Amino acid sequence: MDGSHWVGIKAIAEEMGRRGHQVTVVIPEVSIRLGPSRYCKTVSYPVPYDQETVDMLMDKSKDNIRANTLPLLERMRQRMANIQNITWFIHTTAESLLFNSSLITSLEQQGFDAVLTDPLVPTGNLIGRRLGIPSVNLLRGLPCGQDLVSTACPSPPSYVPRFFTQHTHTMTFTQRVVNVLVSMVEPLLCRLMFWRFDQMAYRFLGEEVGVAEVLSDSAIWLLRYDFIMEFPRPLMPNMVLVGGINCHVRKPLPQELDQWVSGDKGFIVFSLGSTVSSLPDDITQVFLKAFTLIPQKVLWRYTGSVSGHIPDNVKMMKWLPQNDLLAHGGVRAFLTHSGTHGLYEGVCHAVPMVMLPLFGDQPDNANRLAGRGAGVVLDINTITVETLIKALDEVINNTRYKSSLLKLSAIHKDRPVDPLELSVYWTEFVMRNKGAGHLRPAALDLNWFQYHSLDVLGLLIMVVIAIVMVMVKCFSLCIRGLTRKRTRNSKQD
Amino acid sequence: MDGSHWVGIKAIAEEMGRRGHQVTVVIPEVSIRLGPSRYCKTVSYPVPYDQETVDMLMDKSKDNIRANTLPLLERMRQRMANIQNITWFIHTTAESLLFNSSLITSLEQQGFDAVLTDPLVPTGNLIGRRLGIPSVNLLRGLPCGQDLVSTACPSPPSYVPRFFTQHTHTMTFTQRVVNVLVSMVEPLLCRLMFWRFDQMAYRFLGEEVGVAEVLSDSAIWLLRYDFIMEFPRPLMPNMVLVGGINCHVRKPLPQELDQWVSGDKGFIVFSLGSTVSSLPDDITQVFLKAFTLIPQKVLWRYTGSVSGHIPDNVKMMKWLPQNDLLAHGGVRAFLTHSGTHGLYEGVCHAVPMVMLPLFGDQPDNANRLAGRGAGVVLDINTITVETLIKALDEVINNTRYKSSLLKLSAIHKDRPVDPLELSVYWTEFVMRNKGAGHLRPAALDLNWFQYHSLDVLGLLIMVVIAIVMVMVKCFSLCIRGLTRKRTRNSKQD
Repeated sequence: MDGSHWVGIKAIAEEMGRRGHQVTVVIPEVSIRLGPSRYCKTVSYPVPYDQETVDMLMDKSKDNIRANTLPLLERMRQRMANIQNITWFIHTTAESLLFNSSLITSLEQQGFDAVLTDPLVPTGNLIGRRLGIPSVNLLRGLPCGQDLVSTACPSPPSYVPRFFTQHTHTMTFTQRVVNVLVSMVEPLLCRLMFWRFDQMAYRFLGEEVGVAEVLSDSAIWLLRYDFIMEFPRPLMPNMVLVGGINCHVRKPLPQELDQWVSGDKGFIVFSLGSTVSSLPDDITQVFLKAFTLIPQKVLWRYTGSVSGHIPDNVKMMKWLPQNDLLAHGGVRAFLTHSGTHGLYEGVCHAVPMVMLPLFGDQPDNANRLAGRGAGVVLDINTITVETLIKALDEVINNTRYKSSLLKLSAIHKDRPVDPLELSVYWTEFVMRNKGAGHLRPAALDLNWFQYHSLDVLGLLIMVVIAIVMVMVKCFSLCIRGLTRKRTRNSKQD
Repeated sequence: MDGSHWVGIKAIAEEMGRRGHQVTVVIPEVSIRLGPSRYCKTVSYPVPYDQETVDMLMDKSKDNIRANTLPLLERMRQRMANIQNITWFIHTTAESLLFNSSLITSLEQQGFDAVLTDPLVPTGNLIGRRLGIPSVNLLRGLPCGQDLVSTACPSPPSYVPRFFTQHTHTMTFTQRVVNVLVSMVEPLLCRLMFWRFDQMAYRFLGEEVGVAEVLSDSAIWLLRYDFIMEFPRPLMPNMVLVGGINCHVRKPLPQELDQWVSGDKGFIVFSLGSTVSSLPDDITQVFLKAFTLIPQKVLWRYTGSVSGHIPDNVKMMKWLPQNDLLAHGGVRAFLTHSGTHGLYEGVCHAVPMVMLPLFGDQPDNANRLAGRGAGVVLDINTITVETLIKALDEVINNTRYKSSLLKLSAIHKDRPVDPLELSVYWTEFVMRNKGAGHLRPAALDLNWFQYHSLDVLGLLIMVVIAIVMVMVKCFSLCIRGLTRKRTRNSKQD
């Protein structure tokens, strides 16, 4: 998995390498942000697209920001085109790896102990099955809930909000209706999401299995979340919570940057994530205008071109050491697109946030943290200089955000084992014990009918009906007998 | 909680005291095995029974062993009398504490941070609520499943075996029918189990709450189990697995005992738990006879009188340092009643077991471990010299038991945090954060109808029915209109 999904995988892979394990990272020759590391061996494979295609694909995300303001039909057309582009990219990358037979053969020969992967793109899980080695999954959750199905993890729609609904765990009746309907559509969504991979699985593995079955083989599920952001819900024994994995992974700031951010008034960190590095010009101008009116300095991750003057208190950079900046004493606020990594970093260092969710799980994330007093949410499509300044002023000067965050941060960090440490522990566990078979629930061997005991309930209902019928029959026979007797008696009288 | 339930509570309380916390243990003046500790302050309260009554009550357990051989009616009478005795003991002990107003007032004044308790007897939870402090529960599970209800933890009867059924997680259809029926009876069982405590709750707290509601307030549930013995099942975020809590709590053997157990042939540890310290004479004779025929020495926890000669290789003791003995290199087998503490100690030190389950959860425990190759199960009622010798010979000389146990032991001990450490961590967490509110599921605010989305499903079914009816109506109107038109047309023709 590329993009922000790479962050966690990279952290674990490097830590494994640092501890003396032989870690091989398999990546495409061209990618968004995948790259070599000094603690891992990198194997790359050719793909039928070039860096320009990838950059263009990423640049398209800028158009998406404006999609909400377009007429419905145009918006749908654009969304569909976007989804098609991304799925093409994902499928092509996966096929380039799975059907690169010399690479697969070479992987087969190396005797790996386990595969660490993000199952949102199940390529790694397919390879794990082919190589006969256990998988360790790192994920936030699959949008269609396939992770819950493949782990047999209960997820009652009455209080576990579905992805994209922006519900909390306390829903009104109408929200529960929507939540139940979404949960009913989920299996179909999973089919759509993974149909191409189901075909690849069949071709690659030579057996009649789909992604769902391959995923249910997974030994351990490392979940990139924590209940300071998510709502408490059932878990399975092979699920391990590792939200905020890079909270403690920290380096000192480069000297030049450290000098720039120093000053009485503090600074603001502004990033819209790895996939959105530029904005439509009118929105960029709103931000620049607002920044001239605030006392803080602003560090902005921005790679696009800017028309006009950039204020002195704004520094645009192609890449930000985000976590290190958020850990800095001078930071006053975090302008974020609400990706989980950024939010957990913000919570870790108790930085008040102005959240500008763009797509995917970001609106859900933003709502959850705003509900816990960690910041405010703005719509980037309707943003104005006034609303932005008001939001920044609110989170910076109203102490309630900082005080909520200090509490959240304390609870978030109050865990018996550091999440990175825990991720490495369970990965090593899987390597040591050739999986985690003792944590596999027998529910995976039942079909849904058996799982919900519908066959048993059917039998019990039939038994009850039979008993009632026999009783009614007996009763009516008795009555009839009695009536006859009485009639006979009265006749005799 | 007295008896074996005291073992885990004591271990945590002492470790907390050792770390500098002020721990106050509240115990009755007379008990089975509760007592003071150098790391805790002990407060005792008067009870309206004496040590003799308690000893007599314990001695009755010997009669229970033989209960299975009695005629049905006599057996039921004895079982009922036994249950009555134990519930009288539990309720009297609880009432002596709850309605000792000077003690409760003194507890109220001390400003405790949390209460650590075993909710099988919910006295501690009631006091926690009265004092307005969070509870940390240590338990193996409540027989009627109240722990699962009060945590809103799903427990599908299709693969989660119910207490006392001796089912595994893979059930036949018939077993699933029994399991579903048992799960249906559970709420009634809970009512029976806690009805007296419900009354006490009302009197003690002066509010309309029952045990179920008080338990659902609990901050953290420390579960004394591990998936080397239990079957994988859903858990809730506030459940922490701490099975095998005293695996690493170990002291060297007293010199005299160490000398006695030394020797080439090794030794066997024999204990039937804290509540069964003597046996009917004929059963005792079977064991003594068998022990004369084996080369190993036998350390037997036995306080009853023995008629006749005790063989030289047998040493009877009033109390055994069981865990330290099982950790000794010379141990060859463990004759146990299959209480969870003993079994986890046996697994921890990989000692093959001959299991003689007596009552409660013991038959379930024994079956589970036997199924994993850790030993064999014998029925103490039908035990003979031959079956006992055969069982001992099997577990001692067939290497498959030892080798299964070495694997189980390795997995059992392969945990990121030692269970005692983890118990202390979460107890301290609750003290630091005044509970664990962020782990409380919103499911606890729903009634069962809402929890299972039955109201939503009802609405959806009604909508579907309405749509179908409207469609049928439309269709029939169309057909009728068409038929009329045709009739008119044909008439016109």
